[in-house]
Amino acid sequence: MRALLFNGQQLQLGTAHPLPQPTAQEALLRIRLAGICATDLAILRGYKGFTGVLGHEFVAEVVACADPSWLQARVVGEINCGCGSCSFCARGNGNHCLSRRVVGIQGRDGMFAQYACLPVANLHRLPDSLSDQQAVFTEPLAAALRITEQITLAAGEPVAIVGDGRLGILVAHVLAHQGCADLYMVGHHPEHFSLWPASLKGHWHPEQLPEDFSFATIIECSGAASGWRWALAKVQPQGRIVLKSTFPGGVPVEPADWVVRELQIIGSRCGPFAPALSLLETATLPVEKMISAIYPLSDALTAFAHAQRKGALKILLAPEEE
Amino acid sequence: MRALLFNGQQLQLGTAHPLPQPTAQEALLRIRLAGICATDLAILRGYKGFTGVLGHEFVAEVVACADPSWLQARVVGEINCGCGSCSFCARGNGNHCLSRRVVGIQGRDGMFAQYACLPVANLHRLPDSLSDQQAVFTEPLAAALRITEQITLAAGEPVAIVGDGRLGILVAHVLAHQGCADLYMVGHHPEHFSLWPASLKGHWHPEQLPEDFSFATIIECSGAASGWRWALAKVQPQGRIVLKSTFPGGVPVEPADWVVRELQIIGSRCGPFAPALSLLETATLPVEKMISAIYPLSDALTAFAHAQRKGALKILLAPEEE
Repeated sequence: MRALLFNGQQLQLGTAHPLPQPTAQEALLRIRLAGICATDLAILRGYKGFTGVLGHEFVAEVVACADPSWLQARVVGEINCGCGSCSFCARGNGNHCLSRRVVGIQGRDGMFAQYACLPVANLHRLPDSLSDQQAVFTEPLAAALRITEQITLAAGEPVAIVGDGRLGILVAHVLAHQGCADLYMVGHHPEHFSLWPASLKGHWHPEQLPEDFSFATIIECSGAASGWRWALAKVQPQGRIVLKSTFPGGVPVEPADWVVRELQIIGSRCGPFAPALSLLETATLPVEKMISAIYPLSDALTAFAHAQRKGALKILLAPEEE
Repeated sequence: MRALLFNGQQLQLGTAHPLPQPTAQEALLRIRLAGICATDLAILRGYKGFTGVLGHEFVAEVVACADPSWLQARVVGEINCGCGSCSFCARGNGNHCLSRRVVGIQGRDGMFAQYACLPVANLHRLPDSLSDQQAVFTEPLAAALRITEQITLAAGEPVAIVGDGRLGILVAHVLAHQGCADLYMVGHHPEHFSLWPASLKGHWHPEQLPEDFSFATIIECSGAASGWRWALAKVQPQGRIVLKSTFPGGVPVEPADWVVRELQIIGSRCGPFAPALSLLETATLPVEKMISAIYPLSDALTAFAHAQRKGALKILLAPEEE
C-alpha cells in the first residue's frame, strides 16, 4: 500500500509498504481523509525522534475487525494506546500511560497511509450528519476542549489566545461556545477574521497590544517560544497560562517571578472525543473553511511543503482507494 | 533608634536612624522580636534591589495609634501594603496590588529596628496564649498555609516537599495537619528529624530517592534551582509543582515537556494570618525548637552570619528597649 514515512532524515512516499495486520483487539482501517498537524511538522525537525508512518488526525472506514458490529463503520480515533496494565491505564487514563504508544508520534505507525490499525477501544463512530471534512477536525477540536476540563473561566474574565492559526481558532470557538465574553486573539494573521467566533472582542498583533491590556488567562497556541514569552509578559498577577502548543528546545524562565506573581502554568494535551463530535454536530464551526487544500496521498510531499507555508491553515491528505 | 540597614552593598547597623512617624492610618510599633528569612538573605544578593531597613517577620507592641483601642496591643502584621485604590485593592487583594510596597522587601522599611510603622489594617492582635517566640512564626506559617488555599490534596496522594529547612518543615506540618498521609521530605538535613510531623512517611536525600518513586504533588521549598529541577524530574504525569521558594536568576525549561505530561506549576507567596494564628494556638507545632539562636539587634551582623550557615534554622533578633 501507499504510506508516507519519515526515516528520521526525510519524508518518503512508500508505494509498497506492507499492509498492517490487526490484532484481536484492533480494527483494520481504510483511511478516507487525514490532516497534517503542527506536531507532524515538529517531527520533521526531530520532535520525539519518531520514525515510521506519520499522521494522527483522520477519518476512516473499518474494513476488518474481530467484532463484526464495527465493519463498514465510519470512524475517528483517539491517538494514545496505553499498555492496559499500569496504574494510569487501571484508572482509565491511558493518555498518560508511561509506556504508551501514540499514533504517528511515538512507537506506532500513523494514518498517512491507505490502511492502518487501531485498537477498537480508541474508535468513535461518526454520525451521518458529519462530513469527512468536518470529522477530520475531531482530534484537534478535542485537544481544544481539553482546556475546559482543566480550568473554569470566571464571568467577565479577560482571556487571550496567543497564536491565531488552526489550533488558536478552534480554541477560540470552544471558549466562545462556553460563554467566554471577553476573548481576544493575538497573532500575525488578521486576514483569517472570517474564521473567528462572532463574539471575539478583538485581535492584536503581539507587539501592538496597548500597554494597559493584560489577561487573567492566556492560552498559548503559537507553537513558538515567542508566544510563551508574550504570555508571561501579559498575564495578570494570579493569572493562568495554559500551554497547548509544543515547541522544541529550552527557554530560560525565572521561577521566582512566578512565585511573586502567583502564576499558574498548566500543560494541556489530548482531549475528549465525544464532546468534540457533539460540538461539531451542534455548533456552527467554520472547520470546512479552515481547509486550505486537499491533496491525494501520492502528492504528500507537495502537501507538506504547502503546510509549512506561513498562513497555511489545514492541509488534508486523501489516500486513494486501490 | 537602632536599625539594620542594607545599602545595596552591605548591611549596616545604624544607631541614630530617625524614629518613623505613623500616618493617620498607621500604628507605631515597638519591635519585640523579629525573624531572619531566606528572602532577607536573597536581598543581600540583590533580590528586588531593595535598600533600607530589612525584616518582615516580627512581633511588636503598638505604642502610638490614632485608634486608641490598639494601644499596648501585642501584634503581628501582614507585609503587603496596597495602594488602596487599584482594581486588585478594590477586590481586597492588596497582596497583588501592582504598586504595593512590601515591608522590608519593596519600597518600605522593615522590622529589624527598635520601632517601625505599619497600617492598622495589616495588624493582627496576639492571644495571650502565644509567646513571642511562637508568634514570630506567624508570617512564614501563613505562607505555608497559602498552599491549602490553592490546591486540594486527594486522599492517598503522594506528596513530596523538596527542601527540608525552615519553610519545608512548616509546610510539612501544615500538610500533615490537613490529613496528608503519604508525605515525604527531600533534602540534606536528616538531623532535623525531631522537627518533622510524626506522620511523615519518609525523608530522602534528593539523589538517593529510589527509581520507582514519583509524586503527584511536589512542594518546592528548597530556595535553589536544583530543587526545581528535582521536582520536574520526580513529578508524575498530570502532577503539580507548587513553587514556594524564590531563587535568583533564570533556569532553562522545556515547556513542550509540560504539555505532553500535562504538568501544573503553581506559584505561591503570602498566606492568611488568621488561620496561621489559630494553627499556632491549637496544633502542636515545634516552632520554638526551630529557633537556632536569638541575638540582640546590636549583634545583627553576627546573627546574619549565623543565618547563612548551612543547617541553621530560625535566627531571631531582639531589639533592645531604650
